[in-house]
Amino acid sequence: MSVAHRNRAERLTEAEIFQAHLGGKLSTHVPGTPLDARTLSAISTPGVARVSRAIAEDGRLAARYTWAHRLVAVVSDGTAVLGLGDVGPVAALPVMEGKSALFKALGGLDSIPLVLRSHDVDEIVETLRVLRPSFGAVNLEDVAAPRCFELERALDDALDCPVMHNDQHGTAIVVLAALRSSAELLGKPLSAMRVVVSGAGAAGTACARILVTAGAGEVTVLDSRGVIHRDRPGLSPAKERLAELTNRAGVRGGLADVLPGADVFVGVSSATVPEELIASMAPDAVVFALSNPTPEIAPELAAQHASVVATGRSDHPNQISNLLACPGIFRGALDAGATRITERMMLAAADAIVALAADDLAPDRVVPSVLDPRVAPEVAAAVAAAADPALRDPALRDPALHEPTLHEPVPSGPGEGRP
Amino acid sequence: MSVAHRNRAERLTEAEIFQAHLGGKLSTHVPGTPLDARTLSAISTPGVARVSRAIAEDGRLAARYTWAHRLVAVVSDGTAVLGLGDVGPVAALPVMEGKSALFKALGGLDSIPLVLRSHDVDEIVETLRVLRPSFGAVNLEDVAAPRCFELERALDDALDCPVMHNDQHGTAIVVLAALRSSAELLGKPLSAMRVVVSGAGAAGTACARILVTAGAGEVTVLDSRGVIHRDRPGLSPAKERLAELTNRAGVRGGLADVLPGADVFVGVSSATVPEELIASMAPDAVVFALSNPTPEIAPELAAQHASVVATGRSDHPNQISNLLACPGIFRGALDAGATRITERMMLAAADAIVALAADDLAPDRVVPSVLDPRVAPEVAAAVAAAADPALRDPALRDPALHEPTLHEPVPSGPGEGRP
Repeated sequence: MSVAHRNRAERLTEAEIFQAHLGGKLSTHVPGTPLDARTLSAISTPGVARVSRAIAEDGRLAARYTWAHRLVAVVSDGTAVLGLGDVGPVAALPVMEGKSALFKALGGLDSIPLVLRSHDVDEIVETLRVLRPSFGAVNLEDVAAPRCFELERALDDALDCPVMHNDQHGTAIVVLAALRSSAELLGKPLSAMRVVVSGAGAAGTACARILVTAGAGEVTVLDSRGVIHRDRPGLSPAKERLAELTNRAGVRGGLADVLPGADVFVGVSSATVPEELIASMAPDAVVFALSNPTPEIAPELAAQHASVVATGRSDHPNQISNLLACPGIFRGALDAGATRITERMMLAAADAIVALAADDLAPDRVVPSVLDPRVAPEVAAAVAAAADPALRDPALRDPALHEPTLHEPVPSGPGEGRP
Repeated sequence: MSVAHRNRAERLTEAEIFQAHLGGKLSTHVPGTPLDARTLSAISTPGVARVSRAIAEDGRLAARYTWAHRLVAVVSDGTAVLGLGDVGPVAALPVMEGKSALFKALGGLDSIPLVLRSHDVDEIVETLRVLRPSFGAVNLEDVAAPRCFELERALDDALDCPVMHNDQHGTAIVVLAALRSSAELLGKPLSAMRVVVSGAGAAGTACARILVTAGAGEVTVLDSRGVIHRDRPGLSPAKERLAELTNRAGVRGGLADVLPGADVFVGVSSATVPEELIASMAPDAVVFALSNPTPEIAPELAAQHASVVATGRSDHPNQISNLLACPGIFRGALDAGATRITERMMLAAADAIVALAADDLAPDRVVPSVLDPRVAPEVAAAVAAAADPALRDPALRDPALHEPTLHEPVPSGPGEGRP
């Protein structure tokens, strides 16, 4: 089947899209329903009072007897929704609801979408601080840069639970994994690759950082004003830090000054890249055109000049989707009782994705499919194993409290309850 | 089967209670899973961008294409949990999670438990104002009086969606229904009944008010300091208003001064009532001992002196549970697109419960079982019919937008989407 034919076959109708969202995409579920009178007595009065009293005496028991310690809040202020920009919290909700639905469907991870009518970092932090006992982790989505950097840091300080901005780190983890697999496939070491990142928002900044950490040969980042370099006036604090980490050669100018001869293009802005610039890249070029819903260059065009082409879209091969990193990374962090998602855990997630792609590596399979059921459990296991024991929730460090949470039944005693 | 035998058979073991809460009682669910690639494309990129854009252009579409307009936030600060008092938000969570589980199991109503680390009315209002686009209604639970009155009023003013404090109005609706059914059964008109309400917290205040509204003969309320009357110094604003509405005879003193000869005792405090006082009530007395988990008087004792005995416990007959009012009342309010839950809607809910009990009326069946599957839909239909059309969400007044929400598929067009 030709690419053109396959894409036509996969094209969705408007009616089909809206039908799939009708009434929302998420629901609650009560395991063990329909209820009988005995279960009703256990989970409402009088039974629940016994559990509530036990948790009041030892708060650590909440990890065993509530859903909060396996629940992620999927939080957005709606300021940077997909490639659509600041559409606000109401229009962001179908995206967050979709994330929650996919976290469940792909990784068995429970989450609730929370869209916020606020653009103020302090107010958002305060809102989540007040809500803190309701959930076990925070997944930030679609918050505009540079506020997203400040917000993630402030939440990390304010909340004693894992916090991660998915558009930054989820994307960066999968870009790193895809690039490692491409390097393997093309026989070019990552350390010899010159990488151009177009976009210095949430995703671009995090991609550049993780690629530097992982030892990419040379990384250069551009924003709407061109190449970021140390001497450029008016850099934001985040871009100042980027300028320190990247562009060691001190190049200035625009895409036309850095893309010719480059090995890798990572597009995470909405800026279109001209075909002739893609054509000017090094042999066996790698093009990740990740903007959604419209990639920086049509993948069919890019494929005429590059050996590996990836997009962010689910209707093209090589989907670089942060769904490959999350839900697994949250699942792993929660399973380990981690209070932070560290860089080590993120690199472990990338390793797990690379290992899965290795089984079946090809130019159109540098990452596993988002629908591959092995992804979430493998990523979760790698992330949990990489969690720093010192950063584990003290409530969960006691194995007697934690281990049986989801796996073993409570030993059944012969005693009767006090009614 | 004797009462003693039945109660023993129904008694839950500690192990059974904790087992029922292991890992929490709630989960998310994605209708239509497992996902195929086509559904993935529709509900994530690129499909969801089309829906997000449509909602950004016309916010009213959120009612059709997200779950928020069928979602209730079950909110508590954990200050008055069951009869346990101020156990805090963490220990309140199993109770709220149980409510959410039962709202779903009994009424098909989606809800999320939100427990708040705040006792400050302004801070709670601000938190829910920021979260407002995430849900369609607020069910307050287990907030201590008198703050609950102020909080409910402030939320009603701040949020353009139904807000109801269940411990007040849910309980009051079911007490009114149970008393109407008891009046029918005993052949005493409600207007001839003298009612003593022990407890002037959330439930007691709301019960007294709804009974006065519904035309009970004489209502007297007691708090921990005794009978509430107009001349008592130091009354809170809520109790001042109670003093105006009740105790027309101006009685003073304690339970021993008002219970002898009374027709109805409604216990909604944790204060024990001595058996001899129950014995002093009028013939064919009605005793609702509603404190949880420990009723004001053991129902077996009360039954020796009263013709109708009810408790709040699921392991006794005649369970006066606000689960008979909610989930139905929220289901009805959301179905009608109501922005307020009015007194008229509450009285309609009570009528529906009375009608259901009438089919099978008996001293131990003055209310239907919480597990009766007819309750939630009948209450919802009655509440929706009683909703004031002027208070409907403007977003939902356009039938073209609202009617097809959950019932009809979108007409399928021949056009293809723009990718």
